[in-house]
Amino acid sequence: MSELNTVAIPSYEDVKSAYLKIRNNVHRTPVLSSKKVNERAGGELYFKCENFQKVGAFKFRGATHAIGTLSEKEAKNGVATHSSGNHAQAVALAAKLRGIPAHIVMPENAPKVKVNAVRDYGANITFSKSTQEGREATLQKVVKKTGATFIHPYDNPNIIMGQGSAAIELLEEKADLDLIIAPIGGGGLMSGTAIAASGLSPETKIIGTEPEVANDAYLSFKTGELHPVQSTNTVADGLRTSLSPLTFSCIQKHVDAIYTVTEQEIVEAMRFIWERMKIIIEPSCAVPAAAIFNGKIDVEGKKAGIIITGGNIDLDKLPWQS
Amino acid sequence: MSELNTVAIPSYEDVKSAYLKIRNNVHRTPVLSSKKVNERAGGELYFKCENFQKVGAFKFRGATHAIGTLSEKEAKNGVATHSSGNHAQAVALAAKLRGIPAHIVMPENAPKVKVNAVRDYGANITFSKSTQEGREATLQKVVKKTGATFIHPYDNPNIIMGQGSAAIELLEEKADLDLIIAPIGGGGLMSGTAIAASGLSPETKIIGTEPEVANDAYLSFKTGELHPVQSTNTVADGLRTSLSPLTFSCIQKHVDAIYTVTEQEIVEAMRFIWERMKIIIEPSCAVPAAAIFNGKIDVEGKKAGIIITGGNIDLDKLPWQS
Repeated sequence: MSELNTVAIPSYEDVKSAYLKIRNNVHRTPVLSSKKVNERAGGELYFKCENFQKVGAFKFRGATHAIGTLSEKEAKNGVATHSSGNHAQAVALAAKLRGIPAHIVMPENAPKVKVNAVRDYGANITFSKSTQEGREATLQKVVKKTGATFIHPYDNPNIIMGQGSAAIELLEEKADLDLIIAPIGGGGLMSGTAIAASGLSPETKIIGTEPEVANDAYLSFKTGELHPVQSTNTVADGLRTSLSPLTFSCIQKHVDAIYTVTEQEIVEAMRFIWERMKIIIEPSCAVPAAAIFNGKIDVEGKKAGIIITGGNIDLDKLPWQS
Repeated sequence: MSELNTVAIPSYEDVKSAYLKIRNNVHRTPVLSSKKVNERAGGELYFKCENFQKVGAFKFRGATHAIGTLSEKEAKNGVATHSSGNHAQAVALAAKLRGIPAHIVMPENAPKVKVNAVRDYGANITFSKSTQEGREATLQKVVKKTGATFIHPYDNPNIIMGQGSAAIELLEEKADLDLIIAPIGGGGLMSGTAIAASGLSPETKIIGTEPEVANDAYLSFKTGELHPVQSTNTVADGLRTSLSPLTFSCIQKHVDAIYTVTEQEIVEAMRFIWERMKIIIEPSCAVPAAAIFNGKIDVEGKKAGIIITGGNIDLDKLPWQS
């Protein structure tokens, strides 16, 4: 691992090694394509369908790896995190499969369906105030009381290594991709994806995509300075978080470009994929396709891999319904 | 082919031959399974995903076969049908791929999205009154004027043979199925499925499923007399049609049992599959799973194949939303 700003960036070998450790515990998800989608895109798109992953999202890869690397002594006291999203379910299930306790801090206003999903995996849930400060304070108390290891959703090299395993599988299946495109939230998936491609297919361009209203990665990448996210008012609920110093370093080193899309473009692309591909994807996954459909990324005559990050969505409140 | 009431029932060899003719024109759709769905079912379910078929439904198989068997002379004048559903799109695309005209009669109140889909395939659309009589009268005029061949959605041996190809692929992939379960509308898919299994896996039980409020096949099967459907008030819009003498004969000969489910059971099973499998299925496809989830079909310790018929649904009006 190389050092940058005292932050250790995982190497391709780290990602490859993580993949070999977790491959029997994660689903090898299919890579789908669609003639109608390709007609609209003007190029060949290959969708790596992590919506079919365990817990319905790529997050299970990172959580499985990070929890798998804990020593017996560390593992004994379990793991903890705060999340109301896919990372909570991923940590809960990965801990259950290792046979250790999971302590999940969830905001008191978390949707019941998400609370139930975490509870179904046998995790201990502690409710907190819904602010970032409230969540972190409650997490600290839980960690202090239980001795559990905090598993950060992305500011953790072992998480990044695990997330990169999706891109390894994608490149094993489609070796000649001109581009790989992923959405950027906290940057864990983007970092792991870029590192995986840097070793396996160095000539493949790595593109990040982000909602225009949560463009912290775009601004950070452009200015060379870490910008925290200013607004969390995007339909892409998986992309409301800010980069960390670690993920920013990975992205600076390995990502070629970042593009942003509007909220309307995200919702329209998401619906197009539901209608044409008959798969359920979260708004966050539609961000790369939105960038292509609206001419921000040119795939004319090219082959582009896209990481479909997850399929967890409230079916009572679809974003095209008011 | 054997004769029954002057109706020729296709044989397994007919279905196999149809499969070999169309296999390069249709998608070989994936067979998916889900641990969570299996936990609920109490057995192993294998879903043959025809929602990923061209036009989003198995109907493309039958239409491709029926249109492919026309002589050059017949084909020259094109094909015609009346439908506002998947069969219309299937005929339109299959005709386009053969390079012949398609004349589709659609009710004047057909949803715009369905009209546009048929038009996108280059078909000629004629609007009719929305009653069955109005549609048939308009179709007759169109046929008379154009000399096109009428492609019935299920009362047509070539259609039945084509639909059976999905079950051939399913059994090629999972040879040891104890059961195969399909929904019954007009009976074309059920007939083709049952005939395919009778030749390829005679020990597999073949089960039909139907909405309770459109139980014409159940009643016909039970009484031995063809009952037309009494109500079309089911959420499973693909299953509102009645059996024909031909499909009834096939079902009497090859199907082992038929079970019915309530509307609520259909909607709940559909939502469960969307949530757990992240695939978009029409209400009609949820009928077999609903019968299993509600204990009407016992799959305890068994392997059951289910034909997922299609994924075309209006995303603005989901059945669990009022």
